[in-house]
Amino acid sequence: MFNPLNADTICAPATASGRGAIGLIRISGAHAFSIITSVFSPVSKKFDTSKIESHKLYFGTISDNKELIDEVLVAFFKAPHSYTGDDIVEISFHGSSFIKKRILELLISKGARMAQNGEFTQRAFLNKKMDLAQSEAVADLIDSQSAVSHKIAIKQMRGGYSKKLQELRQQLLDFTSLIELELDFGEEDVEFADRKQFFALLENLTNEISKLKNSFQKGNVLKTGIPVAIIGKPNAGKSTLLNTLLQEDRAIVSNIPGTTRDTIEEAIDIDGIHFRFIDTAGLRQSENNIETIGIEKTHEQIEKASVILYIFDSQNEDKDSLAENIKDLKSVIRDKDYKIAIPIANKCDNEENFPRDFKLFDKKPIFLSAKTGLNIEKLTKELTAHFSDTDPDSEQIVTNSRHYEALIRALESLENVNNTFAQDLPIDLATTDIRMALYHIGSITGEISNTDILGNIFSRFCIGK
Amino acid sequence: MFNPLNADTICAPATASGRGAIGLIRISGAHAFSIITSVFSPVSKKFDTSKIESHKLYFGTISDNKELIDEVLVAFFKAPHSYTGDDIVEISFHGSSFIKKRILELLISKGARMAQNGEFTQRAFLNKKMDLAQSEAVADLIDSQSAVSHKIAIKQMRGGYSKKLQELRQQLLDFTSLIELELDFGEEDVEFADRKQFFALLENLTNEISKLKNSFQKGNVLKTGIPVAIIGKPNAGKSTLLNTLLQEDRAIVSNIPGTTRDTIEEAIDIDGIHFRFIDTAGLRQSENNIETIGIEKTHEQIEKASVILYIFDSQNEDKDSLAENIKDLKSVIRDKDYKIAIPIANKCDNEENFPRDFKLFDKKPIFLSAKTGLNIEKLTKELTAHFSDTDPDSEQIVTNSRHYEALIRALESLENVNNTFAQDLPIDLATTDIRMALYHIGSITGEISNTDILGNIFSRFCIGK
Repeated sequence: MFNPLNADTICAPATASGRGAIGLIRISGAHAFSIITSVFSPVSKKFDTSKIESHKLYFGTISDNKELIDEVLVAFFKAPHSYTGDDIVEISFHGSSFIKKRILELLISKGARMAQNGEFTQRAFLNKKMDLAQSEAVADLIDSQSAVSHKIAIKQMRGGYSKKLQELRQQLLDFTSLIELELDFGEEDVEFADRKQFFALLENLTNEISKLKNSFQKGNVLKTGIPVAIIGKPNAGKSTLLNTLLQEDRAIVSNIPGTTRDTIEEAIDIDGIHFRFIDTAGLRQSENNIETIGIEKTHEQIEKASVILYIFDSQNEDKDSLAENIKDLKSVIRDKDYKIAIPIANKCDNEENFPRDFKLFDKKPIFLSAKTGLNIEKLTKELTAHFSDTDPDSEQIVTNSRHYEALIRALESLENVNNTFAQDLPIDLATTDIRMALYHIGSITGEISNTDILGNIFSRFCIGK
Repeated sequence: MFNPLNADTICAPATASGRGAIGLIRISGAHAFSIITSVFSPVSKKFDTSKIESHKLYFGTISDNKELIDEVLVAFFKAPHSYTGDDIVEISFHGSSFIKKRILELLISKGARMAQNGEFTQRAFLNKKMDLAQSEAVADLIDSQSAVSHKIAIKQMRGGYSKKLQELRQQLLDFTSLIELELDFGEEDVEFADRKQFFALLENLTNEISKLKNSFQKGNVLKTGIPVAIIGKPNAGKSTLLNTLLQEDRAIVSNIPGTTRDTIEEAIDIDGIHFRFIDTAGLRQSENNIETIGIEKTHEQIEKASVILYIFDSQNEDKDSLAENIKDLKSVIRDKDYKIAIPIANKCDNEENFPRDFKLFDKKPIFLSAKTGLNIEKLTKELTAHFSDTDPDSEQIVTNSRHYEALIRALESLENVNNTFAQDLPIDLATTDIRMALYHIGSITGEISNTDILGNIFSRFCIGK
């Protein structure tokens, strides 16, 4: 995949835009050192352009002809011991956007060109410093905003499931050669590939890929935040609960039924897990029947949510109508067994007249007071319990939808291979499917890639990475 | 000026906030090295905490206990060869705000504390890495947005007028000792201080300080941008001119008189000089008389502006009424001889029926077309000509109002000293004034400073600098 653009020496700001104490500009490519030394004057007399040490910082000035642009620190990284695998120079300057602009203009005038988004990481990939899944994890890492998404990204950046997939793919590739060799012998009916070993490999691969595929649903909500819908009748205390969880006052709380006109979404980190709480409009149209819930938004929220908090007023609610409501709500969320429903008996700061042994969603409600915060920790514990078992440290989690799709396709191909053998169909059918499986597995780690895919992947990076 | 807080090891993010490819955190202080080595695991086995090399970068990981936070590059700077003069560590991490937060929390848990705004530079000052005027220039440099403000700031950061002031102050200080010695001999009427040399020094000092003081007016507009008011009747083409100068479409341009309801301000760099163009509301109330201009805003703009562009329609304007207008406008700007007025004959894309020899503000108008851009470069040349003679390379320019005030006070004291000697008044009067002059000059470079002043100065810095 030779691309003449990769021969260019590229430069870009590496730090966030805006005023800062320090800004960084990176240059990568064959001419990085000669470009910087043509504009940089080190203070130290010991500096010798022919003997630049890697991983060393030099203090000095950058000038455009005789005009001083800034006092800078310049770091040198010699290929291949750099992020991209090419020679890299990092310039740290006084963080003014004017100085940034001047330095970039100067570097460009000396032969560098502005890097495209993600081009540094793309070069690291092309130079085999990291595989494609690792490269993608770099962008995820920079975007990470919670402990869980950070953990998943950093694990993947450091190898994650790439290695396992690469190993299994290599084994499959070896078998493919043998099976394709059998085809060459056509009528002779020889078997170079040990069928027993081959089927064991297929099973192993199918298991691994299924596991990864299945981690996506959970992984994705962990990464982007777990959507939690708060459902309940008007005045049951939905907004109050949200506020208590937020410990601030973004939702409008009042005693007027139906106060919350639109859905409100708030993100909270509980024990490092990112939850997105959605306060719904409530059940205004009918107070007794979930089927006539009528408010499309609430329905949508139930659809989207991974967790449903069903909140009711333990002081004023009729047990039977409540049970009926829950039954109807259950029918709405039927077949969605990944959804977790938690019933909450609110307003328990007063004397509790609600039967403690009562069950909803086949579990006991959590008795709490959204207003005083009493027992609120029981709710947060219940919430985190469902997700903290997902330990990104020990488990492989897929959060990248490109990987997820590739895994699904790979699984389909593997199933086809299995079927071909099970039904004793012509073996050349199998080889086509094996090639497909190889393709899809390889596309995750980048052993298979093309310019379009790469362009797509790296364009979502920020500049300078 | 011992402050126990300076014994702390401080840390802060050094790069602009927001997502970026790379973020930097700095640690400065006696424990910087031991704090980082307690959480950093270098990849290289050659890393020896007892033999850390200064100005060297180490690749590795930062972990909180066993939890990996990020792959980082760590740079070490040994005292006194660092920005602050203390041991410094720079951590460059994947630019996510989550990772930034985690690393800072970790460093704080290991004994560092968050730095206050400007605290790194304040330490550099206290450790005599730079004087106070240089420290202040660091903040100016980071804020610099144009070539001129950048030049002034970087010149000052690298010494600027500090050195000259320090030398002259030292000479004055030496004389003071001698003169004060004379006082001890009271009645004996001896003269230890050579009067001729002393008066020469006084004159030299007065000249230097006057020059610096006088540079402030110009320096300040160069730094913050030169305010240019565009004045003219409705439909004379004020907004069009602004737009052509901007080469974009921010002001609302139309043929309806009085379209521009509020003043619009746009900043443009012309040949590295920062101009702030102010499009005024025009002369709606009366079309013929500047005295009844009536629009307070326009008056205000004239007050504030260093340059006034008076634009008129060369195709439709009566020469006599125009001359009268200018006469009135002149009376408004009278006594403001630092103001530059430039008459502009607009709409010269058509055949020009306006007399070319006509003078306004005692100069020929610039004949141009704001719409087509014809001759617009004549205007930009005229604008820059008035300011490009200020060459920050060869001239010392004061832009700091604290310095400006100190210069004024120092001048007053020096004048008093001169008067005392001229009127043969008791010499102890002179010594008091000399002490005052020494104080004010010393306050610029920080030879004289106190905690309040320093607090004031460094609080305007950004965090991490």
